[in-house]
Amino acid sequence: MVEAVETMDGWFSLHDLRKVDWAKWKLASKEEQTKAIEEFKTLLSSWDQVEKDKSGSHCMYHIVGQKADLIFIILRPTMKGLAEVETHLNKTKLAEYLIPAYSHLSVVELSKYAPQKDGVDPETLPEIQARLKPILPKYEHISFYPMNRKREGDDNWFTLEKNKRSKLLYEHSLTGRKYAGKVKQIITGSVGLDKWEWGVTLFAHDALQLKKIVYEMRFDTATSRYGEFGEFFIGNYLANDDLNTLLEIS
Amino acid sequence: MVEAVETMDGWFSLHDLRKVDWAKWKLASKEEQTKAIEEFKTLLSSWDQVEKDKSGSHCMYHIVGQKADLIFIILRPTMKGLAEVETHLNKTKLAEYLIPAYSHLSVVELSKYAPQKDGVDPETLPEIQARLKPILPKYEHISFYPMNRKREGDDNWFTLEKNKRSKLLYEHSLTGRKYAGKVKQIITGSVGLDKWEWGVTLFAHDALQLKKIVYEMRFDTATSRYGEFGEFFIGNYLANDDLNTLLEIS
Amino acid sequence: MVEAVETMDGWFSLHDLRKVDWAKWKLASKEEQTKAIEEFKTLLSSWDQVEKDKSGSHCMYHIVGQKADLIFIILRPTMKGLAEVETHLNKTKLAEYLIPAYSHLSVVELSKYAPQKDGVDPETLPEIQARLKPILPKYEHISFYPMNRKREGDDNWFTLEKNKRSKLLYEHSLTGRKYAGKVKQIITGSVGLDKWEWGVTLFAHDALQLKKIVYEMRFDTATSRYGEFGEFFIGNYLANDDLNTLLEIS
Amino acid sequence: MVEAVETMDGWFSLHDLRKVDWAKWKLASKEEQTKAIEEFKTLLSSWDQVEKDKSGSHCMYHIVGQKADLIFIILRPTMKGLAEVETHLNKTKLAEYLIPAYSHLSVVELSKYAPQKDGVDPETLPEIQARLKPILPKYEHISFYPMNRKREGDDNWFTLEKNKRSKLLYEHSLTGRKYAGKVKQIITGSVGLDKWEWGVTLFAHDALQLKKIVYEMRFDTATSRYGEFGEFFIGNYLANDDLNTLLEIS
Amino acid sequence: MVEAVETMDGWFSLHDLRKVDWAKWKLASKEEQTKAIEEFKTLLSSWDQVEKDKSGSHCMYHIVGQKADLIFIILRPTMKGLAEVETHLNKTKLAEYLIPAYSHLSVVELSKYAPQKDGVDPETLPEIQARLKPILPKYEHISFYPMNRKREGDDNWFTLEKNKRSKLLYEHSLTGRKYAGKVKQIITGSVGLDKWEWGVTLFAHDALQLKKIVYEMRFDTATSRYGEFGEFFIGNYLANDDLNTLLEIS
Repeated sequence: MVEAVETMDGWFSLHDLRKVDWAKWKLASKEEQTKAIEEFKTLLSSWDQVEKDKSGSHCMYHIVGQKADLIFIILRPTMKGLAEVETHLNKTKLAEYLIPAYSHLSVVELSKYAPQKDGVDPETLPEIQARLKPILPKYEHISFYPMNRKREGDDNWFTLEKNKRSKLLYEHSLTGRKYAGKVKQIITGSVGLDKWEWGVTLFAHDALQLKKIVYEMRFDTATSRYGEFGEFFIGNYLANDDLNTLLEIS
Repeated sequence: MVEAVETMDGWFSLHDLRKVDWAKWKLASKEEQTKAIEEFKTLLSSWDQVEKDKSGSHCMYHIVGQKADLIFIILRPTMKGLAEVETHLNKTKLAEYLIPAYSHLSVVELSKYAPQKDGVDPETLPEIQARLKPILPKYEHISFYPMNRKREGDDNWFTLEKNKRSKLLYEHSLTGRKYAGKVKQIITGSVGLDKWEWGVTLFAHDALQLKKIVYEMRFDTATSRYGEFGEFFIGNYLANDDLNTLLEIS
Repeated sequence: MVEAVETMDGWFSLHDLRKVDWAKWKLASKEEQTKAIEEFKTLLSSWDQVEKDKSGSHCMYHIVGQKADLIFIILRPTMKGLAEVETHLNKTKLAEYLIPAYSHLSVVELSKYAPQKDGVDPETLPEIQARLKPILPKYEHISFYPMNRKREGDDNWFTLEKNKRSKLLYEHSLTGRKYAGKVKQIITGSVGLDKWEWGVTLFAHDALQLKKIVYEMRFDTATSRYGEFGEFFIGNYLANDDLNTLLEIS
Repeated sequence: MVEAVETMDGWFSLHDLRKVDWAKWKLASKEEQTKAIEEFKTLLSSWDQVEKDKSGSHCMYHIVGQKADLIFIILRPTMKGLAEVETHLNKTKLAEYLIPAYSHLSVVELSKYAPQKDGVDPETLPEIQARLKPILPKYEHISFYPMNRKREGDDNWFTLEKNKRSKLLYEHSLTGRKYAGKVKQIITGSVGLDKWEWGVTLFAHDALQLKKIVYEMRFDTATSRYGEFGEFFIGNYLANDDLNTLLEIS
Repeated sequence: MVEAVETMDGWFSLHDLRKVDWAKWKLASKEEQTKAIEEFKTLLSSWDQVEKDKSGSHCMYHIVGQKADLIFIILRPTMKGLAEVETHLNKTKLAEYLIPAYSHLSVVELSKYAPQKDGVDPETLPEIQARLKPILPKYEHISFYPMNRKREGDDNWFTLEKNKRSKLLYEHSLTGRKYAGKVKQIITGSVGLDKWEWGVTLFAHDALQLKKIVYEMRFDTATSRYGEFGEFFIGNYLANDDLNTLLEIS
């Protein structure tokens, strides 16, 4: 039995991915389509207002490839608030044309592996609070993937001593720092909430940086021996008004 | 061949998870919807009566994310009684709009790893009987997940000597005790009933505690080397009358 | 290369599991439902006659949980006979409302691990013949699961010497004997017929015994190191006439 | 890096498995059904002619259990010819009632593990040519399964020296020889064509022999340490005219 | 922690595989079918123009077996451009009859494992630029498969020193060179973009060469110990006008 590390937990997060049912959508009348899009944009506007009020955040991206067409990432202070957003989304007219593709429930998380300064509880610091309740960036591109720390034979993250884990994560963070300004990363924890233990969401202005950072990190011991990955979802930023273009049938 | 440990077995349990077929539900008339909800609430009331009579227990939660929308946990004294509840549920009008998402059959279980006091069979104690035939808590939040004990190479729970298993479970229980008053745990055994050997159902007033306890426990040797997990389902408490709100289409 | 052990093979066996399509079934008229049930009971009666004639056997159970609703286990002397029963079942009106859930093709099997008495070929003994062409019990409860013997690293059943395998199976059988009178077990072999190498079907009067025997056996080396399991299906006995109650829509 | 062994490659092969959509089939009119069957039998006759012309071969079996209802094995000299057969099959009326269940693309293959006689290239021998372009047997029963050679830790076929592989395959062939006259085996290679590296198709007059040979072979080192198996599909021979009986709805 | 190797990244790539929904397609009127095919060929022509303009490339093949019927490989300079092509494809009339079967998002990639000549950055060389922005060959046959480098116990590509990886890849390339003129290979990288880390697309005039090269390479240490493969998709070249023949219903 080894010592765990306390986490700092912020807003609850739902990654909600949907496929467009194109065949069904094309059967809808022009009027029906317009109504569905407008209603949905009203919902998006209400989420925008929540974000302005700093009582939550969200973003929407257009996923490339068949795994999904849309991803909504929603942050809310409570799990109940998150559930309300999801139910609201499910009840929209547009949702009748969207097929659930994947979802991941988690909590914005910072670990306390780094040593505390002068005995100050980092959770009380304003900069930490800002990172726990973040306004999601709206960069051009996104990569979202769930991950585990391995527990296979000799490659078992959870039997490593705390200082060994600290060291590996520190090394890992050095790779991340090389991408400062290019890639922004949000870690959400889901141990106890999902079979994948963490969600990683990367934002980049240049799509290639999403590939470069993950490739380089794969050689860090924290990943090469202890990382285990699920599906990867990649998308382009989709502004509210771009929904019309994406869904427009000529 | 090592010595097994006898289990104490209580009520049979069915975790039944369903998705709402929103597109189909929205096609139903207001009248049809009302009829379906009212009929279902009558069923829930009959289950409430069973619980009052102490001849069973149940709870209903609203699952967050796409894996499911509703979870029903049903406890009954016999497997036949459990099957009747399930068939009744399947025959309701509301069930026509619910898509089966997952189910887990098990039995409320306590192990006899702890030494017996003064040669008394613990199964005869009233406090044990109460735990074997529990009234399910109605806390704000739930986390349900099935699990196995690993049998992979050197990480094989079932080849460990009994006193080694006892020791590991004792350590594990110490982590659990830290959450006394915050998290209530019901263990149900399903060896011989399901490919997952146990079901863990956690109840918490504060959703974050569901994450914290499972995270901390993941570092216990009983978990880090011997735990194997299936899907996790997380939900918010749903009172009978809240069904109307959840399913209301404006 | 180690020595295999000859098997004694009896009747061919099909485990056929189906889900009731409740939504579709409820759309059928009362008349249609009655017709479908009556036709199916006629088929069941014809199987009963085969069993009386000792040219086959079968049983039907009501599965608990979402994995399936009904299991039919059919034994016939030839694979062609088995295929005819399956095709007949597929062509019934009731089958239009049943969704295939799982099936397992195998052969009733006894191994020759135990030493032969006085050079007598055990296959010629009447008691062995009775076990190879068994009339399936109609106990209250059933548990059916497919299984393999592992071939992973050091845990490889098929590289063990024959006498080691004999010893492990003998130990394993001692656990089984404790449940004599409580649990009846039918082993069917499916090497070459299915990706799962064996099917285990347990019958019990008391459902808890299904859990107890499998739990206790999991600590036997034959299981802890060499057993690998698929899905488990648990059910309550369903007499022909109980089909009406199960499927009755009020 | 170890030395590979050249393969001798013959006709291209497609194993095409389909389920009958019984519910849909029963909705078709008697006339429609007759038309679909007759059209399909015309297609089968054209394949028969190809076989008579020795420019291909095929067979059709009725699969037992829910995994599929029909298997078609088609051999053709080119991949383009194979694709044409598949497209033709897809366009038949009967195919509207058949649900794709599984397929495997491969090439009839003989390995050159055995030492060459007198420096003669075996591929030039008539008996080898006959085996590379075989007329498929029409025995009573079939077993088809895809397989890999393992690459897991110490059990890695592809890192073994060539003479070690030769030796293991020679031992393995001795087991096969015991079944001469009872079981006919066709090996098709699919490395580079499918995630399963080989397909094994066994033909037997007595269905039990399919079980016995695979069971006995499982103890050969080539299998016990290096064999990895996919799904198994078992069937009874179906003559063209037996399609009527199989699909007849009374 | 070991040193990664920089990659040279070219055009973004989408492998998009679809099944024809034959039953639905056959329900369409002749007129509808013609319209759908002609509209689609117009789209293909616009892609041809992009290829002529050297601002992208693509190809279309007819997949053999049930995994898919069509593969489109699309190369574009940006991920946004790729998404637009995909959306356009989804909106075509023909797409209403195509069922998504698989997709893989990646980037044409060359690694810098080979030593640099005279300190010249290879990425600046015209021949490298041509390989990073390739015009896809239109050979008779294709094999596409996603792959990983293993991270299992002692078989962990990402913990190998850089010079060890270089050496293994050099050996591996020697096998590839034997197929010069027979097989053309395009490697696309997808670390950070997909759970499979690379896509391999092989083009050959003779279909057997697809099998021979992958078989021979499987014995290279880079593959035997470190290669992990997904599904394989094999197809025959389909010219724009051949769509009519493929989809023609007589």
